[in-house]
Amino acid sequence: MTPAKDTVTEGTGAAGLAAGVQSRVIVIQNVSPELDGGRYAVKREAGDTLTVEADIFRDGHGKLSAVVLYKRKDEADWREAPLTLANPGLDRWSGEVELTENAPYLYTVEAWDDEFESWRDGAGKKLDAGQDIPLELTEGRELVAQAAARAGGPDAKALEKTLKDLDGARDDRRAEIMMSDAVRDLMARWPDRSRAVRYDRTLEVFVDRVAARFAAWYEMFHRSQGTVEGQWGTFDDCRRRLPEIKALGFDVIYFIPIHPIGRTHRKGPDNTLVAGPDDPGSPYAIGAEEGGHTAIHPELGTLEDFRRFVAACHEHGMEVALDFAIQCSPDHPWIKEHPEWFRFRPDGTIKYAENPPKKYQDIVNVEFYGDHQDALWQELLSVVLFWVENGVKIFRVDNPHTKPVPFWEWLIREVRRDHPDVIFLAEAFTRPPMLKMLAKVGFSQSYTYFTWRDFKGELTDYLTELTQSADKEFLRPNFFANTPDILPGYLQKGGRTAFMVRFVLAATLSSVYGIYNGFELCENEAVPGTEEYLHSEKYQFKVWNWRRRGHIKDLIAKVNRIRRENPALQELDNLRFYEADDDNVLFYGKMSADRRNMVFVAVNLDPFDAHEATLTFPLEDMAMEDTESFAVEDLLTGKKHLWTGPDHAVRLDPKRNPAVLFRVVPWHHVDFVAPSF
Amino acid sequence: MTPAKDTVTEGTGAAGLAAGVQSRVIVIQNVSPELDGGRYAVKREAGDTLTVEADIFRDGHGKLSAVVLYKRKDEADWREAPLTLANPGLDRWSGEVELTENAPYLYTVEAWDDEFESWRDGAGKKLDAGQDIPLELTEGRELVAQAAARAGGPDAKALEKTLKDLDGARDDRRAEIMMSDAVRDLMARWPDRSRAVRYDRTLEVFVDRVAARFAAWYEMFHRSQGTVEGQWGTFDDCRRRLPEIKALGFDVIYFIPIHPIGRTHRKGPDNTLVAGPDDPGSPYAIGAEEGGHTAIHPELGTLEDFRRFVAACHEHGMEVALDFAIQCSPDHPWIKEHPEWFRFRPDGTIKYAENPPKKYQDIVNVEFYGDHQDALWQELLSVVLFWVENGVKIFRVDNPHTKPVPFWEWLIREVRRDHPDVIFLAEAFTRPPMLKMLAKVGFSQSYTYFTWRDFKGELTDYLTELTQSADKEFLRPNFFANTPDILPGYLQKGGRTAFMVRFVLAATLSSVYGIYNGFELCENEAVPGTEEYLHSEKYQFKVWNWRRRGHIKDLIAKVNRIRRENPALQELDNLRFYEADDDNVLFYGKMSADRRNMVFVAVNLDPFDAHEATLTFPLEDMAMEDTESFAVEDLLTGKKHLWTGPDHAVRLDPKRNPAVLFRVVPWHHVDFVAPSF
Repeated sequence: MTPAKDTVTEGTGAAGLAAGVQSRVIVIQNVSPELDGGRYAVKREAGDTLTVEADIFRDGHGKLSAVVLYKRKDEADWREAPLTLANPGLDRWSGEVELTENAPYLYTVEAWDDEFESWRDGAGKKLDAGQDIPLELTEGRELVAQAAARAGGPDAKALEKTLKDLDGARDDRRAEIMMSDAVRDLMARWPDRSRAVRYDRTLEVFVDRVAARFAAWYEMFHRSQGTVEGQWGTFDDCRRRLPEIKALGFDVIYFIPIHPIGRTHRKGPDNTLVAGPDDPGSPYAIGAEEGGHTAIHPELGTLEDFRRFVAACHEHGMEVALDFAIQCSPDHPWIKEHPEWFRFRPDGTIKYAENPPKKYQDIVNVEFYGDHQDALWQELLSVVLFWVENGVKIFRVDNPHTKPVPFWEWLIREVRRDHPDVIFLAEAFTRPPMLKMLAKVGFSQSYTYFTWRDFKGELTDYLTELTQSADKEFLRPNFFANTPDILPGYLQKGGRTAFMVRFVLAATLSSVYGIYNGFELCENEAVPGTEEYLHSEKYQFKVWNWRRRGHIKDLIAKVNRIRRENPALQELDNLRFYEADDDNVLFYGKMSADRRNMVFVAVNLDPFDAHEATLTFPLEDMAMEDTESFAVEDLLTGKKHLWTGPDHAVRLDPKRNPAVLFRVVPWHHVDFVAPSF
Repeated sequence: MTPAKDTVTEGTGAAGLAAGVQSRVIVIQNVSPELDGGRYAVKREAGDTLTVEADIFRDGHGKLSAVVLYKRKDEADWREAPLTLANPGLDRWSGEVELTENAPYLYTVEAWDDEFESWRDGAGKKLDAGQDIPLELTEGRELVAQAAARAGGPDAKALEKTLKDLDGARDDRRAEIMMSDAVRDLMARWPDRSRAVRYDRTLEVFVDRVAARFAAWYEMFHRSQGTVEGQWGTFDDCRRRLPEIKALGFDVIYFIPIHPIGRTHRKGPDNTLVAGPDDPGSPYAIGAEEGGHTAIHPELGTLEDFRRFVAACHEHGMEVALDFAIQCSPDHPWIKEHPEWFRFRPDGTIKYAENPPKKYQDIVNVEFYGDHQDALWQELLSVVLFWVENGVKIFRVDNPHTKPVPFWEWLIREVRRDHPDVIFLAEAFTRPPMLKMLAKVGFSQSYTYFTWRDFKGELTDYLTELTQSADKEFLRPNFFANTPDILPGYLQKGGRTAFMVRFVLAATLSSVYGIYNGFELCENEAVPGTEEYLHSEKYQFKVWNWRRRGHIKDLIAKVNRIRRENPALQELDNLRFYEADDDNVLFYGKMSADRRNMVFVAVNLDPFDAHEATLTFPLEDMAMEDTESFAVEDLLTGKKHLWTGPDHAVRLDPKRNPAVLFRVVPWHHVDFVAPSF
């Protein structure tokens, strides 16, 4: 009990005195990062340094010492990292913890009265003012004696020797000894922490692997990867595309659902209500005679074929993400095996999904609560673990906002208990509170509104919120430029240039982003007046010509290579917007913490007309003088410039260069540290 | 257990499934106001309306209902106020609670699935789309039957009748009945709340009496209120000044400590170390042979005299505030009676107060922790309660930041358990974290940095922080323009005009403010190079001429009257700054919530030169059209104007009118609602 002895709740007072007082004599508050009072974990990635800050103070003038306590969640003992007083005027302390492993970590803060430093401060001021301090020296000796009793090893001996030296000396010599650096260091190592105060919450940081923050996703509609019209592409067809996808620079192949598709109420081409006998149906109507969420559509191949595909991806240094879509077709085996998981209507049918007056007749939903809750949740968990066992470590979750929040919190925690490397992406295209809540309860990444943010003001506002507000502690935006359900108006109207613009934005604004196949071909035919693709492959067979004229694969490969070569682009919250004096031109940059790598991007958001803008480089943030020269490499063209001062004009022409990516290197550093020239 | 049945922690799942999942299927978060996760109470005043807001949402499209639960802390049962969906796009709900009593209140939020509204929404959309809904009608009837089983009184009968009507009717008639307002109202009164979700924290709002927010304080140095040089003024002398203070418009007479003063190390005039035999000493060196913190200095009078003074204040509609300064003179009775409350040094002396190398030899401090903690804390509590019993309901606390935070939290809670009308003002002239912390743990009001904020930018920034940030929920600034320890440089240099300026600022920026006697006389002689008053009455006798030439008592009386007559000036967080196109001119306003009362203030912060500025009135905030005329009354001169449009020039001359206070009344309302013309 000693560590908390000086808290009032555990003090010597009568119960009446102590009742209800939980605060501590040393106040520790505004600990950062902290999410909702510690209710949810913040997120980081392996290799990150976690900066922990806190207001720490108490009454009076005494000196304090403080540490961050931290450990992997499965460890028994706390480790410590020092906190230092970073802003004395605001009592703000700061320290750093190295997060080396992909695992959940815990951390908190502990502080104590540093009696020796308090003594030293007061005694020093009096000595400086020419005052004699015989009493202080006696009191100081007592502190040394106490430390000697606590100390072990050579320090114990050194402190004993200090006591002897003091006892034989005159006041001026005693003062000299007591104020020496040697004694100060010794005393700092043996503080009296019996009355240390610990912050009243233990906080959690979930440390993901780096791929949670830095990855390029390619969404693959498996059955459209073949070459024969009217037939299913197979896993083997998909596998044949891997060298091309790898050459484009992608890290993740994301498959839409690979399971058997129901026949009852199967949708026909263009989302019609009646399917012909050969129509393949929507892969989101999961489950048929052949099986449910752990089965594979027979036309795609066998589980063995799937594993071979996964292995091939790994050989290419890529990995596979699967879609986790909990809905069922009316033919899903669960309905026969577990009718109690579904809600039957008075006429004996199961309510299909609807958003009145819209109807989704090929899908029914499970009921998450009821006496069957345990069985259902365990079954869903087992589905995820089944695919984990088969080499899948990334799940893109379909419509998580239509399933209960507590379910996701439970599921993700259960999966990651043994598999902390599993990443979950939430497709929560819904209102901000639910989108954020799902990120808080554990989703590693989130789809965002980026898909519909086209212009300078809205991009600046939204990205500033994502990267500079408290959201950055828990919400990682995965910027999808398009999806099977969303062909944004900007892409429909702006042609090939629009695809280039949106690609550069997605890949440089966020460290993790994705495209859905066809994007690289600038496919932009929509059902008029909607964001649906015309003749969407969701409902019919499709064969693509992956070398179609007008593709932008060169740009994609180049930008993905630039992302790999520039660590600044692999971070998210280092994004900053800078001045460009034209509303069509968005100018932003990312710098590594050590300023070794600085990349600036200017994008013409107008897909039709050229615009010229003067860009103002943030020389102070770049740790450069106003008059200093810097080397600029245009990373897309390879052209180099030598520039001086903050302001430089660029002309961005939709036909030639809708975007420029500049790597900047201070001129005088070039010879010594910069690897870029 | 039913209310929490749908939370996962109490669900039917196995322990393994439920472990660690505490979130609820309906998410309730970002509840406002909430301070540090509910750890501290927010503050309001009796008569206020508390606006409670929360994000409330769940998965899917179902409708929710929600209420604020609230009660006085001593009540057993919750009362309810409705929450309505104020911002559907952000799932933000809002409701209002009337805080009628001076007492602590608790509040929280509860929400539930509104099955009938969900049913009605879906059925209505289908009817609108021309769909037949026989199944829905059957399901809807079941909801009515369930409500009938829950209902009581006439509603139960009405619901039974509805069921009969439904059973005899055709589908179109059944739809008509089910969609009727009558059935909707009935169903809204008997919701199924068996699975309601309650926010996981109970929050507290401490409702003070209005004087905590709105009052004018006059700090009185009691012994200087007499008329004979070299003698103590008495309580009776103080009493004779009450009509004058009342005429000036003050509400609170605040006495510096009234207790016996120690003789050991007594300070002499001008804070010298040696006092002459007739020097009275600093009233902050509390305690002598005559007694300690519950005794009265014999020269001031008896307890009887004090009670008579308190009664006289009450008769004038004023009240008394006492100084609670815990330090002791070396002669305080506690030192003999309770030596264990003090820390003795190796030479047998008690450490006097110091801030090295500065020494306060006439003061020693108690030790708050140790085996004696309970006895000491109870004694200090009994001191406060002694004065409460003698009619004192306001305590200005000296240097609370040099005593432990947990002590204050305990003391204030203990005092206010039986005396919720007691107000504590913290003199925490220290760094912001401690200043704010003391407000959080219970101090009703705080001294602030206003005393040193002179110019437009710093006043605007600081007041915006105080009135618009989260601080406003717990920190009430009491704006003292001067104190016995602080004669600010602005007053020293700026002469009489400076006193006028600072008075208007204090009295109109904040709803609660104070001056220390002599301010009204524009006393501004300082110890050179310091903020100390020259020949401070803290250390010597003083007799004032309260009618001294150059006083500003007319202005004080007028402004205090204006504060009483204009409800807008009695609030704090309604302060807003507006545009004045001269950096010397500060322009701000306060409006009552209903816009019945709108007061605007323009102050020339330059005490030497006249400045002219165009003021831009916020017509939109004033609920007025750009072209609308409004009546303006200059409240200090009584002059009236009829103005149109936002921009109006004023010239503020230090000699004539360093400040103007305008009351604005929309012209077309004058005949109907405005009481001002």
